[in-house]
Amino acid sequence: MIKVGIIGATGYTGNELLKSFTLHPEVELGFCTSESYTGQRYSEVFACPYDQTLVSAESADPGSVDVAFLCLPHGVSVDMVKRVRAAGTRVIDLSADFRLHEAADYQRWYNHDHTEPGMLSEAVFGLPEVYRDQIAKADLLANPGCFPTSVILGLRPLAEAGALSDRRLIVDSKTGVSGAGRGLSLTTHFVEANENLSPYNIGYRHRHISEMEQELNAAGGGPYEVTFSPHLLPVTRGILSTMYVWVKPEWSLARVHELYEQAYAGEPFVHVLPEGKLATLAHVNYTNRCVISLSEVRPGQLIVCSAIDNLVKGASGQAVQNMNIMFGLDERLGLIV
Amino acid sequence: MIKVGIIGATGYTGNELLKSFTLHPEVELGFCTSESYTGQRYSEVFACPYDQTLVSAESADPGSVDVAFLCLPHGVSVDMVKRVRAAGTRVIDLSADFRLHEAADYQRWYNHDHTEPGMLSEAVFGLPEVYRDQIAKADLLANPGCFPTSVILGLRPLAEAGALSDRRLIVDSKTGVSGAGRGLSLTTHFVEANENLSPYNIGYRHRHISEMEQELNAAGGGPYEVTFSPHLLPVTRGILSTMYVWVKPEWSLARVHELYEQAYAGEPFVHVLPEGKLATLAHVNYTNRCVISLSEVRPGQLIVCSAIDNLVKGASGQAVQNMNIMFGLDERLGLIV
Amino acid sequence: MIKVGIIGATGYTGNELLKSFTLHPEVELGFCTSESYTGQRYSEVFACPYDQTLVSAESADPGSVDVAFLCLPHGVSVDMVKRVRAAGTRVIDLSADFRLHEAADYQRWYNHDHTEPGMLSEAVFGLPEVYRDQIAKADLLANPGCFPTSVILGLRPLAEAGALSDRRLIVDSKTGVSGAGRGLSLTTHFVEANENLSPYNIGYRHRHISEMEQELNAAGGGPYEVTFSPHLLPVTRGILSTMYVWVKPEWSLARVHELYEQAYAGEPFVHVLPEGKLATLAHVNYTNRCVISLSEVRPGQLIVCSAIDNLVKGASGQAVQNMNIMFGLDERLGLIV
Amino acid sequence: MIKVGIIGATGYTGNELLKSFTLHPEVELGFCTSESYTGQRYSEVFACPYDQTLVSAESADPGSVDVAFLCLPHGVSVDMVKRVRAAGTRVIDLSADFRLHEAADYQRWYNHDHTEPGMLSEAVFGLPEVYRDQIAKADLLANPGCFPTSVILGLRPLAEAGALSDRRLIVDSKTGVSGAGRGLSLTTHFVEANENLSPYNIGYRHRHISEMEQELNAAGGGPYEVTFSPHLLPVTRGILSTMYVWVKPEWSLARVHELYEQAYAGEPFVHVLPEGKLATLAHVNYTNRCVISLSEVRPGQLIVCSAIDNLVKGASGQAVQNMNIMFGLDERLGLIV
Repeated sequence: MIKVGIIGATGYTGNELLKSFTLHPEVELGFCTSESYTGQRYSEVFACPYDQTLVSAESADPGSVDVAFLCLPHGVSVDMVKRVRAAGTRVIDLSADFRLHEAADYQRWYNHDHTEPGMLSEAVFGLPEVYRDQIAKADLLANPGCFPTSVILGLRPLAEAGALSDRRLIVDSKTGVSGAGRGLSLTTHFVEANENLSPYNIGYRHRHISEMEQELNAAGGGPYEVTFSPHLLPVTRGILSTMYVWVKPEWSLARVHELYEQAYAGEPFVHVLPEGKLATLAHVNYTNRCVISLSEVRPGQLIVCSAIDNLVKGASGQAVQNMNIMFGLDERLGLIV
Repeated sequence: MIKVGIIGATGYTGNELLKSFTLHPEVELGFCTSESYTGQRYSEVFACPYDQTLVSAESADPGSVDVAFLCLPHGVSVDMVKRVRAAGTRVIDLSADFRLHEAADYQRWYNHDHTEPGMLSEAVFGLPEVYRDQIAKADLLANPGCFPTSVILGLRPLAEAGALSDRRLIVDSKTGVSGAGRGLSLTTHFVEANENLSPYNIGYRHRHISEMEQELNAAGGGPYEVTFSPHLLPVTRGILSTMYVWVKPEWSLARVHELYEQAYAGEPFVHVLPEGKLATLAHVNYTNRCVISLSEVRPGQLIVCSAIDNLVKGASGQAVQNMNIMFGLDERLGLIV
Repeated sequence: MIKVGIIGATGYTGNELLKSFTLHPEVELGFCTSESYTGQRYSEVFACPYDQTLVSAESADPGSVDVAFLCLPHGVSVDMVKRVRAAGTRVIDLSADFRLHEAADYQRWYNHDHTEPGMLSEAVFGLPEVYRDQIAKADLLANPGCFPTSVILGLRPLAEAGALSDRRLIVDSKTGVSGAGRGLSLTTHFVEANENLSPYNIGYRHRHISEMEQELNAAGGGPYEVTFSPHLLPVTRGILSTMYVWVKPEWSLARVHELYEQAYAGEPFVHVLPEGKLATLAHVNYTNRCVISLSEVRPGQLIVCSAIDNLVKGASGQAVQNMNIMFGLDERLGLIV
Repeated sequence: MIKVGIIGATGYTGNELLKSFTLHPEVELGFCTSESYTGQRYSEVFACPYDQTLVSAESADPGSVDVAFLCLPHGVSVDMVKRVRAAGTRVIDLSADFRLHEAADYQRWYNHDHTEPGMLSEAVFGLPEVYRDQIAKADLLANPGCFPTSVILGLRPLAEAGALSDRRLIVDSKTGVSGAGRGLSLTTHFVEANENLSPYNIGYRHRHISEMEQELNAAGGGPYEVTFSPHLLPVTRGILSTMYVWVKPEWSLARVHELYEQAYAGEPFVHVLPEGKLATLAHVNYTNRCVISLSEVRPGQLIVCSAIDNLVKGASGQAVQNMNIMFGLDERLGLIV
């Protein structure tokens, strides 16, 4: 049994981790922390029967668990990562604090200096389909962002194969409201979000662009110039990224299809749809799947659609998948395939 | 042209008033007040092209308009009512402050003393189908609550006819989230309300019971004992009240039907459905309608369903209907029939 | 490993069974039948990666599995039950064909004679919290209806204790649209159901009343007279039943609470909420839970709220729970607790 | 008073016309036709109090009205247009049959020959912001498609100004389910569409591309190559088109903004948002507005967002606006500004 702790357990990603652990035969829950609800039982915070008492992060002993999941805001997470690592415990950090390799990139996109730039090189970017071997050995795992997971899985095979003929990548993403977290705002007030669709931070402004560019550039054929437009959907869960790209003449749809089939052969959670089918949220919600479809607009121009559940493959499910890899377990434990 | 002012214009009822005035050929807009958004244009607060600049209530001159609509919280509204009346301007108060005739009832349900009990007798309860003549002359109009509008219109004919055989009235109501206002809360956070249904304040706790009992008792056959269970629906608008009552043996469904047809004959906004049809939110949303259906469970037991749009017939539309009556206009102006 | 077959696998209950089996460590899938989609792969019918080829019921060999799940319409299921039983295979029938003990009741509520009245006495009503011992030995299990599951679990302790002072039970239920199945109708067309709430078959008309009365009468204190009003909610899943009952003077809320705690002590899926909390769909959706809350209106009058996911505890999850009991497994396998 | 008839009154566009006429002071309703519901009252078909009796198209006299609105499928509409024109009555055709000027284009996109190619040149494309003068004199008005209305209004100023540096235009559109009509399909079944997002007909397949290319090419700077990806949103109403374009270096965002302000100055229904604001469905739903926002990704690359209510500005509202122009009325009558 692996003993786990959740730091910041009362947001949606913390809640999703707990659900996953309930299904997981090899996990034993240590502590769940919350600053807002310290001393309360989990069932008082969420409509569920989980009865763990929430403790403050201060009073949780990181050394008492094998791995700690950090569900904290970026900028705050970094200090907790240090503390947990100091206790010798492995960390899966769901914040953005260790996803970028370069402190300069972090500074540029997050508008403040990284306070532990020296630790950036220790962190492994936790996308199992790309970095499985490093993940197995990681002590500090940076769990990828939700949008980047959908975009990188959706475009990386093309980048790696050098198939893209235009460095301009246009990504139109749509996300469920849970991606905005459990904090209150007018944007996520039911009456404002329901029956609505709102673009936000469109163009070249959203911080997740940094992860997309880092990982696609690392795959090859770049540097790429991502245009990224997130839209807030009136649904609870799910991200669909519709991506417009141009490929070299030799890359027919059939050949691209084969490329993706090979890239994801054996992957338990990535599914490339047959030609003619398109990825939807219904394919992925409440599962750890990423479902990808490939369409040709005209020769040399493709549309890649990539769907994930933002709380599962886009956050907590991927974190559990990473934990399974880190501890040598079947990758699928605790997850819906 | 009637010159109107809106005090508290940036909640959902204020917004709905503005929409109605845009359609109304006899209304000229004076001031719109807001404390949170003073100095901003209305289009910065709501996704719409209305360009009025919001002023503080302090700086609005109540004497500059023919009628002021007050969209303020109960307990706060009472002072503004005094101020507007002191300027000689007629008031349509959308709060609960002047709906109850007895200060003791107010104290009981609102947990604090009414600060102007002497003014309670001046106020007219603004349900046009019952008090049209008094409304025409009213200077201080208390616009009814949303749930009470659906319940009183749905049950009053039976009470007035002395048809009810059991004083126990069971009301199971379902409301859209806009009924909870534009203030932020976890309950109305999209992720919490969406795909959910939550009962709240069920039994004999919700303040709107006081209006229901006052008005049904006034109609006759009481005193009644209302059991009232509101539920929060994952929709933006609409109230459906499903009401379980017992009637005296002589009241066949056909006879009850006739009673309702007569009670609402000529009413522009109340529709009694033919037997076999049931009231739904789709009948009423975005209109000032109240739609009522009558069903027999078994001889002597009926189910009355009554539907309204909580923001229109349940609030701002009814307020405009009342204004039309107060100023001798066609009752339907500015409203969707 | 238990080998299972699904007859009628392409409705929502069949789909939910498949999802459960994917999580179940002791189940091996035999056949999945479909008449509409014979020869297609499951992934062509639902947005999922399940790759079973659908066969016609005709060509499936019931003798090749340990248990067959029947997801067929009532009236049709009965013949298939006979065929499967003739092969010696145990049956879990999700239709209504074997839920009622009396052929006369079946005839009354379903408007046609039961074609195998002699088999009715063999069937066990599959509500584990009541009939666990009989279920363990059952060869023909009648899986309860969705509304009855919520109502019986919600009211049975009161009936059994003889606590109800009035035989009239008022049940106001709200259900998600998946309860209406995958067949097309104007009622379940997105535009008609969305942002709407529709009562239907209210009063004493819905067939599920027969199960509620049968089981509550069997518990004691009856015969009861159920008034039942289902409403179609604009959500995919979930049933909330709000039930209005009167109890004898000695039954204080605290005592009723204790009664329920005892009645469901040790039950893995039934949760009685602490006083002051109310059951919601959020408590149960995507799980096999039934969550019950108890509220006092005034001394002697209670409101019981009971929530389930109509596709899980209201159908396929309960069927899997029954299978687990029938085969001596941990009741929770394949289910979300 | 203008006397109007609706042919095909029981779809969503017919229903929306009726709602608009209820608000319109200068319209008198002649006939409403329906083949499926002949002889029934309108209130039996839609949840509303409209009491017109539906007649078959056969029995309606087109000569008895001043203008007939045709809400029929393409391919079917053309014959009815002929019949109404033969009676000397003006026609507003909401189908696609007369939107394209070239019979060859029609054949290419609709896969069958146009049966009255000679009439194509008589038809006026009913986009008031472009063709107001021709509309005023039109006897045969082709009301634009919903997606094209959002796209043409969103991009035409750039095309007309010769500002686009790349003929490739990428349009990612999201539409509410009412755009798919009232006919039943699995795609529009509540359970399948709710909490989902589905791309469909993406790339260069959707018939509405023909209108977009025709009108943008006519504006100048083309020919353009539209890539168009519609997505089905889980909302009842609204279209948001997110459009990715490249402009010549001299077209700064500020200059483009000025261009749009001038292009739509005085237009009662088109609103260009100030910089920093983005168009959403909330801006337009239940109104005849088109709301446009302009964003710069990087110098030379823009994102134009354009929102309309697909049933209003995208169909029936625009049809009423066109009628108002055709009959010399205030363009805003019967419409929500």
